[in-house]
Amino acid sequence: MADYSVKNTADSLSVTTTTEQTNNHAKTLAEIGLSQFAPYLMNRIMGRWNVNLHDQLRPHNLNPVKMRTLAVLSIIPGLTINELSIYTVAEQSTMSRSLDALEAQGLIKRISSDADGRVRKVYLTEKGSETFDRLWPIMYDGETNLMENISAEEQKQLIGTLQKMLSNIQPPAVD
Amino acid sequence: MADYSVKNTADSLSVTTTTEQTNNHAKTLAEIGLSQFAPYLMNRIMGRWNVNLHDQLRPHNLNPVKMRTLAVLSIIPGLTINELSIYTVAEQSTMSRSLDALEAQGLIKRISSDADGRVRKVYLTEKGSETFDRLWPIMYDGETNLMENISAEEQKQLIGTLQKMLSNIQPPAVD
Repeated sequence: MADYSVKNTADSLSVTTTTEQTNNHAKTLAEIGLSQFAPYLMNRIMGRWNVNLHDQLRPHNLNPVKMRTLAVLSIIPGLTINELSIYTVAEQSTMSRSLDALEAQGLIKRISSDADGRVRKVYLTEKGSETFDRLWPIMYDGETNLMENISAEEQKQLIGTLQKMLSNIQPPAVD
Repeated sequence: MADYSVKNTADSLSVTTTTEQTNNHAKTLAEIGLSQFAPYLMNRIMGRWNVNLHDQLRPHNLNPVKMRTLAVLSIIPGLTINELSIYTVAEQSTMSRSLDALEAQGLIKRISSDADGRVRKVYLTEKGSETFDRLWPIMYDGETNLMENISAEEQKQLIGTLQKMLSNIQPPAVD
């Protein structure tokens, strides 16, 4: 089943990226190969990452979206629901339900930031902050496992490339 | 809002990855920084990738999971529903509905591969193959945009790192 990866050497990718300067559709997926197509690999990795995270967070009455919400708020307090949707990659309806659940669990609070109370900013409660700190090793250990046998230099290079990709793909209004 | 990224230089990552040899929980997320944490960046990138793909495929009566199914079958014909769920990162229930829809659209066919017909393998129809070839430029152009200003060498490095990460994260039974 894995013979598709054998057909495509790393060399074929550099041909692709050189060729695309002159012809955008020069390469078919069969020519590039699934295992040389970055979005395919990233989707596979994040799919497994999310399944693992889901399983590990369930005993703590959390899920990946709720955990990401706590993580983002631990770094950037006072975000709106719109901003949280973007940072955690959740639909607004999902984020709305997640915030209701996190509030009911006593992990976040919402504070009105304008006179008529329409703009509400979200903050971790002390319990939310403690919960995130306690569960953070789940994500940290997951990342350590993900990066096994990948050198510090290679990881640094990866982060730099991913930052460029995020900057390329996101609409100008975000970040 | 973006000042969290300023706090964390690329250097802090290599400190993290060196330190973790001796102490797995030496670094908090605040110390690493969101924009230095690979799963965060990958989740953001794939979130936007999927939203874009969703919007572009809707006029063609497809969605990202259905398009990925066509893509994977174009490379590896005759997969089972289990295998397709893994390759396309879809839950089995989602894959089951997607296959029903793709079959109704005349894009895939299912062929029993054993005597009692319990194992069914999935193949593209001619129409499915033509449809994928026609719509493939949507994904290809998306990837070209994602990789803007990223050199061929850097892309090659990225693919190599992602392949290691997928191998690290997936359970032994897959691939």
